[in-house]
Formats: sequence, C-alpha cells, structure tokens
Amino acid sequence: MIKTDILIIGAGPTGLFAVFEAGLLKLKCHLIDALPQPGGQCSEIYPKKPIYDIPGFPEVLAGDLVDNLMEQIKSFQPGFTLGERADTIEKLEDGTFIVTTNKETKHHAPIVAIAGGLGSFEPRKPQLENLTKFEDNGIAYIIKDPEVYRDKKVLLAGGGDSALDWAIFLANIAKEVTLVHRRNEFRGALDSVEKVQELKNAGKINLITPAEVIELRGDVKLSSVVIQKTDTKEQIELELDYFIPLFGLSPKLGPIGDWGLEIEKNAIKVDNTLDYQTNIPGIYAIGDVNTYPGKLKLILCGFHEATLMCQSAYQRIFPDKKYVMKYTTVGGVQGFDGSKKEAPKAVVKAIN
Amino acid sequence: MIKTDILIIGAGPTGLFAVFEAGLLKLKCHLIDALPQPGGQCSEIYPKKPIYDIPGFPEVLAGDLVDNLMEQIKSFQPGFTLGERADTIEKLEDGTFIVTTNKETKHHAPIVAIAGGLGSFEPRKPQLENLTKFEDNGIAYIIKDPEVYRDKKVLLAGGGDSALDWAIFLANIAKEVTLVHRRNEFRGALDSVEKVQELKNAGKINLITPAEVIELRGDVKLSSVVIQKTDTKEQIELELDYFIPLFGLSPKLGPIGDWGLEIEKNAIKVDNTLDYQTNIPGIYAIGDVNTYPGKLKLILCGFHEATLMCQSAYQRIFPDKKYVMKYTTVGGVQGFDGSKKEAPKAVVKAIN
Ligand SMILES: Cc1cc2nc3c(=O)[nH]c(=O)nc-3n(C[C@H](O)[C@H](O)[C@H](O)COP(=O)(O)OP(=O)(O)OC[C@H]3O[C@@H](n4cnc5c(N)ncnc54)[C@H](O)[C@@H]3O)c2cc1C
Ligand SMILES: Cc1cc2nc3c(=O)[nH]c(=O)nc-3n(C[C@H](O)[C@H](O)[C@H](O)COP(=O)(O)OP(=O)(O)OC[C@H]3O[C@@H](n4cnc5c(N)ncnc54)[C@H](O)[C@@H]3O)c2cc1C
Repeated sequence: MIKTDILIIGAGPTGLFAVFEAGLLKLKCHLIDALPQPGGQCSEIYPKKPIYDIPGFPEVLAGDLVDNLMEQIKSFQPGFTLGERADTIEKLEDGTFIVTTNKETKHHAPIVAIAGGLGSFEPRKPQLENLTKFEDNGIAYIIKDPEVYRDKKVLLAGGGDSALDWAIFLANIAKEVTLVHRRNEFRGALDSVEKVQELKNAGKINLITPAEVIELRGDVKLSSVVIQKTDTKEQIELELDYFIPLFGLSPKLGPIGDWGLEIEKNAIKVDNTLDYQTNIPGIYAIGDVNTYPGKLKLILCGFHEATLMCQSAYQRIFPDKKYVMKYTTVGGVQGFDGSKKEAPKAVVKAIN
Repeated sequence: MIKTDILIIGAGPTGLFAVFEAGLLKLKCHLIDALPQPGGQCSEIYPKKPIYDIPGFPEVLAGDLVDNLMEQIKSFQPGFTLGERADTIEKLEDGTFIVTTNKETKHHAPIVAIAGGLGSFEPRKPQLENLTKFEDNGIAYIIKDPEVYRDKKVLLAGGGDSALDWAIFLANIAKEVTLVHRRNEFRGALDSVEKVQELKNAGKINLITPAEVIELRGDVKLSSVVIQKTDTKEQIELELDYFIPLFGLSPKLGPIGDWGLEIEKNAIKVDNTLDYQTNIPGIYAIGDVNTYPGKLKLILCGFHEATLMCQSAYQRIFPDKKYVMKYTTVGGVQGFDGSKKEAPKAVVKAIN
C-alpha cells in the first residue's frame, strides 16, 4: 500500500505543479498516470511544439515545460505509479481514500486530487482477431522501456510522429525493425521523416507501404503476422517478437466517470467559488478535467486551481492549524530531500 | 484623449500578462502606472531577488520575469502612461469610461481592468518645511530619466538598495553625487555596498553619515540644503541642483478607493465565480488588488484572473460574437505589428 498526503491522479502539468504547491505546505504527493512518462498531453501529444501563452515564457516547447516542472518539484520527491490507470476508489470510515489501479496497485491518502485532463490516455487499437489474446504477449501499444526490444524483431505500425520516432530509436536497439503504414505518406516533423528515409536507405529500417497487418499468428505468444499490401493485395508473412501498433492514444475519462462525481460535458463539476472541490468532500478536480462557469482548458488555469486546491487540502488535513502563507522569495523553498533554496540576504554594512 | 479597448490600471505582472491574453482576442490595451517603469512590486521592491513559485521556472529573478513578460507582450504593442496615478473615473452614457490621471492625461475605453496590486506606489517623504514648494523644483522622489541629472550636483538620501544603486549609477553621470544617511550602516546587496565604498574611496561619491537633511533653501528652485551630522550635531550647507530622498515607496490604494467599488480589507471585491468583475459592470479587478473567498496574493493567481477577465471583456465588447478559443500552439500568435509566431507545421511526405 502506497501512502501519501495528496494522491494526484494524472501527471500532466497541473498534477505536477500541484506537487510544488503541496510541498510548500509540507504535504507529500504521489502521482498515478496511465502513461509511462509524466507530462500529460504536453509529453504525449506535442512535446516538440512551442506554447506561447505560459506566462513569462514568450515561447516554450511543451516538452521543456514538463522538464522544467519536473526540475521545480524534484526536491519535494513525489512518488510515481506510471503506466497504470486509476480504476476504483473507496472511501474509508475515517474519511480517507484507497485508490486501486488496473494493475492492483493500492494507494492510501486523506486527499485525492484528480488532475486527469481529458482522461486517461488509452491506445487506439487495430481491429484484428485474437488481439486481446496477444496483448502483453507480443503486442504492446505503448513503449515503456525500450530495452525490452534489444536484439528482438519488432514490427511498428503507424504513420505519425510516434511511429517515426520509435522506428528511429529502435533501429539502433532492435535486431530488426519493420515499419508498416497504410499509406506511402507519413505525417510528422520534417526531421523525423527524413531520418527514417535515411535509415531505410541504409537498410536499418524495413519499410512496407502501403500495407496493413491483417492477421496475427502464434500459440501463446505472437510469433508472426500477415501483412497485406493495400495496392497489390500481395500478402507477406513476417516473423517477429513484438508488434507495436502506434495509432495514437485517445483520452477517455473512463472509470473515474463511475466514482459518484458530478459529471458535466465529460468533465467533473467543481466548486470554483472556493477550492475546486468536487461533490465528494476530500476529492478535488483540477486542470482540464474539471468544469465550472467560464472554465478555460488552459495550462495556466490548472496552475492556479492546483494552488488554491492545496490550501484547501491543508485545511482539511489540519483543521486546527492556521497556515500563514510566506512568499517563496522571502521564506525560500525547503525540499523534503534536505535542500534549501533561498534568496541571498541583504547585508547591513558600514561604509567608512 | 488616449483610446483603447482595455484600459489597465497597474503595470505589474498581472496587468502585463492581461495585455497578452487580450491580444490573443485582438483587443488592444493601454496601461497606466504611477511608477516610471513596468513590473509593479517585482520591479520596484525586489527586482534582483529570485521567485521560486512561478510555474515552469525553478527559479527566476523578479526583474527577469518582468523582462520576459514585456517580451511576451511586445507584438501586441501596448500603450503606457507611466509616472502618473489614475485618479478619477467617469462612466459615460454609452457605458464606456474616462480615466484621468493626476497629470490630467485622459484615457477612454469600454473596459477598465484594475490591476493595481497593493496600490499606487507613493514615495515616503521626509518631514521638512517647504517640501511641497520644491517638489518638481529641485526635489524628486523617483528617478524617471537619469539624463536629467547629467552634469548636475545631486544629493541622494537613504540607506537601502535604491539609494545605493542610484548613487552608483549617477556617479558616472552627475557632476557631483553626495549620499546622506542617518546611520553609518547601509542595508542592501553586498555588491552594491562594496561598490559604493569603492566609489567613495575614489572620490566619486561624497558620503556624509550619520547625518540628515534638516533644512531646504532656495527662492523658486531649491539651491542648497542644510545637513546635520546626527552624532556631532555639526551643520553643513551643501549647494546643489537636485535633492532626491529615497526612503522607499509604499503602496496606497488611494483614489481608487473612492470610485464606488466594494472594498474589503483594503482590496476590491470581485465575482470570482465567473470573471473577476467588480460591482460596477465593465470594471474588473485582477491580481493582488482584488479579494474573494480563498484569495491568494500570488503572481500565478493574477495570471489566471487576467485570462478569465479578458474572455469576459471580449463578450462585453462583442455581445453578439461567439469566441472560439484556439490553443496558441495550434493557432499561433498574431501580433498587432504584423508579426506571426507559429509552430512548425508537420509535413506529409512519402518515404520511398
Ligand atoms: C495540440 C495541443 C496544443 C495545445 N496548446 C496549448 C497551448 O498553447 N496553451 C495551453 O495552455 N494549453 C494548450 N493545450 C492544452 C494543454 O495541453 C492542457 O490544458 C494541459 O495539458 C492540461 O493539463 P492537465 O495536467 O490538466 O491534464 P493532461 O495534460 O491531460 O494530463 C492528464 C493526465 O492524467 C492521466 N489520467 C487521466 N485519468 C487517469 C486515470 N484514471 N488513471 C491514470 N491516469 C489518468 C492521463 O493519462 C494524462 O497523462 C494544448 C493541447 C493540445 C492537444
Ligand atoms: C518582497 C516580496 C516578495 C514576493 N515574493 C513572491 C513570490 O515568491 N511569489 C509570488 O507569487 N509573489 C510574490 N510576491 C508578491 C508579488 O510580487 C505580487 O503578488 C505581484 O506583484 C502582484 O502583481 P500585480 O500586478 O497584481 O500588482 P503589483 O505588482 O503590486 O503592481 C500594481 C501596480 O499598479 C500600480 N497602481 C496601483 N494603483 C494605481 C493608480 N491609481 N494609478 C497608477 N498606478 C497604480 C502600482 O504603482 C503598481 O506598479 C512578493 C512580494 C514582495 C514584496
């Protein structure tokens, strides 16, 4: 059982910044995310694209923003349960919560902050017989640890940035990389398209287009697939260790929709007049996942909501303590790792 | 008469960021500030100190944050009325407003956003006979344009960063710089104290401590002052062109308090359930200057408030238009100066 003060569901920019604001209040956080890496939409959908409306950054790449946030919260040592989806919640008699993931990891906390964005990112899957049979038995939709594929025969399918980027990355790791796509044209960063062309020319990526996988074969584990060219209808059987369809991830509110929270327009209604709490006391919803009159799904709004939420959570955990806010410039930032950042003090010194 | 879409009172971080959010909505802004430079508290009180709780910045100097914000809003070409205090407001029959400063500059806009922080920064003044007579006639409390002091005899008074920094700066510009302080000890950045010591040793700053100015002399213009050593009571008459007491600025809500707005705890009450509007439709209050249940006087909160305010202002100006928000990453940022920033587009390209 993982124990923490604030359990944050969703490690997007909102969830990450909540760790910082909680840390200033000496509250510890643990984050759950269905994705293998933190950053939410910023990391998954547009890590290399610039954002222009983060205050103080005339321009920042979404991936760099996430890196900065990770650096900013580092000293507060957040815990992470990555690659797992928060599925069920149980309220104990003492008012605290237990949240269990699809992999049965259990988390216990007095406060749950849902920072789930547009929902848990779930892979779009190809329509193929026996697909579920081979999931985790040769088929994966998300690459958590590329080392798994070292010296293996890997087939990737897809025509976007993910497919291109992973083909490039795995070309140096796997024994054999094949890339299948329904069209001849790929859609992605110019760099990536050109690099794949280069690796193909060098014989490091085996490219089959326009084509798609039409059959999965194997006993317990996937051992080969049948690929059909979509123009000539020619069929090829390809032996492999792994098949990784990269058709994009799409967010689904999913099981959180059944937690008894008030839902409106696929988002969780919160009390924006005070603290972004949901209809269940002790459960907050911040960032893209919530809704209230005038709500804007912007990163900077999630930052504000996270900050007010932490103040309310503090009062809930310590009903008798009065928290006096100190500016970080004045009070410094004291990490849970023993570190302390603070402004250089003014000197008082005679001039003679 | 200066005309604009949103007239912003206060050019602190909140007011500055409002220019950006308004610009995305194609609304023009003009800012009034009592200080000679933008940045509010950040520029006036702690420009060289680090802030740790601006999201995405593990650490940023307050002055750098202001520079970044100025850079971020540049293409939206905001207008500035600096060094003037917004004193009166008049609501015209068509619902628009005229705001007049203490120097009689008039501004006309359909929307007024008060981003006045803790109030208009007003200088702390020494208790001296005839002080007001010499104001703007040899006495200044804020240095707007250092060139005014080129080849002049200048007396500065004060023992903090402002006095130290201006003494250093003017040592290269003025004919003669004298610094008077009640104590021998100065309080400021170590660098600055050491630099003043150096300049004093080199005869470039004339230091008189512990001492204070006790008398002002002159006809229409100030021509000399009497300085008394506080230990020996010795008196010195000093001829000069300018006397600049730098005893700090303190913010005062001031005339805005009489505009008919609901005031609570020296701040303006706003509707935080929707758009941070005040009790007078068309007048909003954002950032440190406002109050609502759970209000935190933090920079990141001002950013969020400014953003929601601009959406509401847009609806007020264009009641019949439906604004569809576009992410900056997707829609880019189109400046009023003709510039356009946008993310590099994905290419669609065949690999052969
Ligand atoms: C192409 C694009 C461009 C954009 N441009 C801008 C822009 O310029 N400016 C701007 O402000 N915003 C922009 N946005 C929006 C911005 O990315 C979002 O507002 C922001 O990511 C929301 O942050 P969040 O932390 O609330 O949620 P998300 O970033 O959506 O993160 C939520 C996380 O929660 C996880 N999660 C949800 N449910 C569960 C569960 N049950 N179990 C485990 N994990 C779960 C998800 O997997 C996800 O990782 C853009 C979005 C896109 C797609
Ligand atoms: C030492 C110190 C450390 C701080 N540290 C932090 C920190 O770590 N994190 C954080 O988030 N915040 C911090 N703050 C607070 C932060 O600076 C404020 O929240 C922020 O400056 C508020 O911005 P604002 O734009 O709302 O108002 P301000 O910065 O106060 O700007 C308001 C401006 O309005 C002008 N004005 C007001 N009335 C009038 C008028 N009638 N006419 C003309 N001009 C007018 C004023 O002159 C002023 O320039 C700190 C503050 C101080 C003093």
